[in-house]
Amino acid sequence: MSYVKDLRWKKGMKVSEIVDSFMNVGFQSIELAKAADLIVKMNKSGAKVFLTFTSNMVTSGLRGFFAQILRLGVADVVVTTVGGLEEDIMKSSGERFIIGDFSSDDVALYEKGVNRVGNLFIENESYARFEDIIGPMLKKLYEKEKRWAVSDMLREIGLMLDCEDSILYQAAKNDIPIFCPAITDGSFGFHLFMFQQDHPDFVVDVVRDFKNILFSTTHDDIKGMISLGGSISKHHAILACLLNGGLDYALYMTTARHSSGSMSGATTQEAKSWGKVKDDSDAVTVIGDVTITFPLAMVAALEKLSDEGLLKGEGLLKGE
Amino acid sequence: MSYVKDLRWKKGMKVSEIVDSFMNVGFQSIELAKAADLIVKMNKSGAKVFLTFTSNMVTSGLRGFFAQILRLGVADVVVTTVGGLEEDIMKSSGERFIIGDFSSDDVALYEKGVNRVGNLFIENESYARFEDIIGPMLKKLYEKEKRWAVSDMLREIGLMLDCEDSILYQAAKNDIPIFCPAITDGSFGFHLFMFQQDHPDFVVDVVRDFKNILFSTTHDDIKGMISLGGSISKHHAILACLLNGGLDYALYMTTARHSSGSMSGATTQEAKSWGKVKDDSDAVTVIGDVTITFPLAMVAALEKLSDEGLLKGEGLLKGE
Amino acid sequence: MSYVKDLRWKKGMKVSEIVDSFMNVGFQSIELAKAADLIVKMNKSGAKVFLTFTSNMVTSGLRGFFAQILRLGVADVVVTTVGGLEEDIMKSSGERFIIGDFSSDDVALYEKGVNRVGNLFIENESYARFEDIIGPMLKKLYEKEKRWAVSDMLREIGLMLDCEDSILYQAAKNDIPIFCPAITDGSFGFHLFMFQQDHPDFVVDVVRDFKNILFSTTHDDIKGMISLGGSISKHHAILACLLNGGLDYALYMTTARHSSGSMSGATTQEAKSWGKVKDDSDAVTVIGDVTITFPLAMVAALEKLSDEGLLKGEGLLKGE
Amino acid sequence: MSYVKDLRWKKGMKVSEIVDSFMNVGFQSIELAKAADLIVKMNKSGAKVFLTFTSNMVTSGLRGFFAQILRLGVADVVVTTVGGLEEDIMKSSGERFIIGDFSSDDVALYEKGVNRVGNLFIENESYARFEDIIGPMLKKLYEKEKRWAVSDMLREIGLMLDCEDSILYQAAKNDIPIFCPAITDGSFGFHLFMFQQDHPDFVVDVVRDFKNILFSTTHDDIKGMISLGGSISKHHAILACLLNGGLDYALYMTTARHSSGSMSGATTQEAKSWGKVKDDSDAVTVIGDVTITFPLAMVAALEKLSDEGLLKGEGLLKGE
Repeated sequence: MSYVKDLRWKKGMKVSEIVDSFMNVGFQSIELAKAADLIVKMNKSGAKVFLTFTSNMVTSGLRGFFAQILRLGVADVVVTTVGGLEEDIMKSSGERFIIGDFSSDDVALYEKGVNRVGNLFIENESYARFEDIIGPMLKKLYEKEKRWAVSDMLREIGLMLDCEDSILYQAAKNDIPIFCPAITDGSFGFHLFMFQQDHPDFVVDVVRDFKNILFSTTHDDIKGMISLGGSISKHHAILACLLNGGLDYALYMTTARHSSGSMSGATTQEAKSWGKVKDDSDAVTVIGDVTITFPLAMVAALEKLSDEGLLKGEGLLKGE
Repeated sequence: MSYVKDLRWKKGMKVSEIVDSFMNVGFQSIELAKAADLIVKMNKSGAKVFLTFTSNMVTSGLRGFFAQILRLGVADVVVTTVGGLEEDIMKSSGERFIIGDFSSDDVALYEKGVNRVGNLFIENESYARFEDIIGPMLKKLYEKEKRWAVSDMLREIGLMLDCEDSILYQAAKNDIPIFCPAITDGSFGFHLFMFQQDHPDFVVDVVRDFKNILFSTTHDDIKGMISLGGSISKHHAILACLLNGGLDYALYMTTARHSSGSMSGATTQEAKSWGKVKDDSDAVTVIGDVTITFPLAMVAALEKLSDEGLLKGEGLLKGE
Repeated sequence: MSYVKDLRWKKGMKVSEIVDSFMNVGFQSIELAKAADLIVKMNKSGAKVFLTFTSNMVTSGLRGFFAQILRLGVADVVVTTVGGLEEDIMKSSGERFIIGDFSSDDVALYEKGVNRVGNLFIENESYARFEDIIGPMLKKLYEKEKRWAVSDMLREIGLMLDCEDSILYQAAKNDIPIFCPAITDGSFGFHLFMFQQDHPDFVVDVVRDFKNILFSTTHDDIKGMISLGGSISKHHAILACLLNGGLDYALYMTTARHSSGSMSGATTQEAKSWGKVKDDSDAVTVIGDVTITFPLAMVAALEKLSDEGLLKGEGLLKGE
Repeated sequence: MSYVKDLRWKKGMKVSEIVDSFMNVGFQSIELAKAADLIVKMNKSGAKVFLTFTSNMVTSGLRGFFAQILRLGVADVVVTTVGGLEEDIMKSSGERFIIGDFSSDDVALYEKGVNRVGNLFIENESYARFEDIIGPMLKKLYEKEKRWAVSDMLREIGLMLDCEDSILYQAAKNDIPIFCPAITDGSFGFHLFMFQQDHPDFVVDVVRDFKNILFSTTHDDIKGMISLGGSISKHHAILACLLNGGLDYALYMTTARHSSGSMSGATTQEAKSWGKVKDDSDAVTVIGDVTITFPLAMVAALEKLSDEGLLKGEGLLKGE
């Protein structure tokens, strides 16, 4: 039996220390501490780890953190939405997003050519410059092949980038596939459409990509998931794992609630009825804003893995 | 200036009456009353109306309500996720979903072959039988063409069904396109993959479908949106409208919050910074479970449209 | 076994009809339909019904609805916070609250002497005039007695009002006690303090009022609760019932979530561990804005009780 | 102009470092970083700082953290609910609360005499032993005086305890008043009632305590607030500050949303319309579970205050 213990500040407290002490605080802090442990456990077990996140997280400074995680070898498969991939490319070419405010005058922002995502701002110009970048990329892809599975295409794009903080770059370099089941749902979709107008035989084959994600793991693999936010990223990764026998480890971090029956708010508990998460699996759900909960849990986990010499990619970070 | 008025029950109170009185109650009830008015306004203006919803709403009894709305001519374009379309087909062939409980024993359910979605249950057998239905459908599609835009494919499938309560059927019959930007993200994706294994030249062309949604409306159209829940359904419809100059009317109904910068929780206010919703547009956000808020607002709106003889498809319902 | 049924609009649909059909829709609509049934059941069983709500609901147009419910005999004990009681008095003397907007310029409002509560506005003048009303009331109370239990004091104040839509008035007239465990937490508290400055022997005895609420029901009573929102109103009523053996019927309607361990978000499930809600009780939790969910459930319940001739106070409404 | 910066893990990362980097991440992590800065600013300004929290936070391990904060001199006035104070006394006499699970079998727990608060458990026996402690305390109080303002009573009780981790003890020892506007809303209320049965002249004077909180600060004071969760704790402290001219610094940390017009979810923005928070004040709202957000922001703030030698009570911790 474990008991509530009074949290106490001490000078110079590390992230890993406070997360450790959260295990005895209560409510979501306990779930957060369990999340850190679960990430460690997944990695020690040799599980194939699916990492899913939504576009807004790439708008935020989590983007480089995701790239670092891929580099460190803590995740093996990525599933996300296209908006974030566009922004990863933008940032890789030097675009900077602005710290703004939740209660901005949105009409005034519009007139200034500024787009708001919560308390972050993206300028129209960033999208305009994206147009100049993506065009030549599509051309190169087309010269190589006419029919592309999405994850293969994203891998090629990653190899065209040169940015240590890029998700696409690190994924490509470390042989981590990125799946994006709704590849046209963004500015990228518009550019694909424009390209196809002039090259009607250019095909993005989403069905072939289903094969790719299905074969990205097997029944025999131990399978884990770190799902940040909801949406199809979460659903698609779960689906691929379900078709391979279900998850052994499942970590959901979200603000959504289960009361409306949505996928975004579905708990690891509900997932058990589907066989998405195995009966006897380790499963944790943390309710809260991912920009806070995920870095905390992951930093605490990285700390432990590093202490035990289990951080595969850590050597790569040396000297930076 | 408008004032708070005390709500009062009277015997035999109609939905339209209570929604009317909500305009003077407070908090979300006011937003709900505004939503009803906005739906009326959109329709009177001759706007092209985009209706978006998530799969869990099709799991629920809203499915037949959506079909009815399409039949009545209150929406012109549908954007949704594939899970719901699968379930629409299942229900069209007689499958029944069970009223369950939020706090079920999920492991026990799994053992009984029952999958939980909030407080609703779907049996494994329903999915098994879906397999028998979808196979022949894909074959017919393939015989007709090798390369399909998603919405064209969904239209064909709708025409193969024969169920007045089916979304796919009513959409097809009433020339309403259904867009589904992540067509592989479900059981349907698995069956597409299986089919492609034997028919490698079978292609689902999502890029061509981007063209379809882009051309489903124009800059000159008055454009309205009824967005239920979040996810890519919401985002995709907004994107298509943004590329055509932005929305004149926007109704968002959701449980998500804007505090995490997600698309699901993004408000009509934030949308203005992007030009997604025009500066001077009518825009309403209603926070709450869509299974309650949407029927109320829509029933009140249908009532008014019917009273004014503006319900295009109402004649069709006669005699039922 | 019960199944999902497609919701269908028909012309002239009544509130009670749509709530009935909600029983087969899904997610929170089912819980709402159960809530309506539970209210009917509580009343038929002859239960002593505790109704709790927070101040903001009295700011809204639910205020007169609460008064009507007390008049109709559907609740027997009220627990609430003092802000709402102040506003009930204000409204009884003709003050009107304004329909405003969630995204107002709050600094500008402040300069105009307007206070915002969500999308409702209260003018400073309303509070100023409240001062003129409450002073003489306290004087009368003091002349009658020096030491007052809160609920006795509120009863006297109710009798001084003359407004059919007043909660205090209808409660007093129908012998329904109103408990308010934090009576000083508002403008009323300030006026009590000012009065006590000049009348040091004036005492508001909250301990004696604990006795009153404890004796407002018994172990032998069948006990029911309709708890709207959270806060101490909810907690205090539950406490009184717990000390009398626990609730037989419990309906919680709230937007709060259970994930933070708060009382506001605590579910009827959690309440069972405390014996607050009996093991075999009927208990329903509806997640959503009370200005929508409560009127719907209550109107549907009133309809049924009226149909069966069980609405005690209905005769009183005749001729209005 | 400030820009989004990619978050990066480095070995041995401190809480203060990650919170610093949150300032450039996005969404709630930015608000959290601002919260830390605001706490520092309040303290440097010499503001009178009101700290409010709800009972469930005292159930958790935040209890000793609150005590430590009082000891360190970072807060000057406390407002809370009675449940937490009861539990502070219980814990001071050695009671231990259990780490449990959100999805427990509540009926089974009830049968074992275990009460659930989210994922924490409290045994019935803890309440039984509380009875033995509180009785003699009330007797001592009564012997000293017959009529008690709440905060005076709580101060006396604090002095009877001997526990460094106790909120009541540290508050009493450091001359920090604790206000509890609904003192009877808990087990404590029951014991007060029992005591008054035998000692009818025993009076808990809540009106006099209103005077105490009103005079706990002045118009001339710089005033700050750290409000954790909602409920009357938040409202009461705001009220006292409003009557003294409004807050200069306001930090709200909560999971509640503003969409329902509740006090718990009211933002610092809305507070400006009331003059609760001054126009030009520094105000931050952080959405999220307080067991995570508060320790992070406060630890980061303590770190900075300590670095600058501004932590009044830090010397007291030496040698522990």
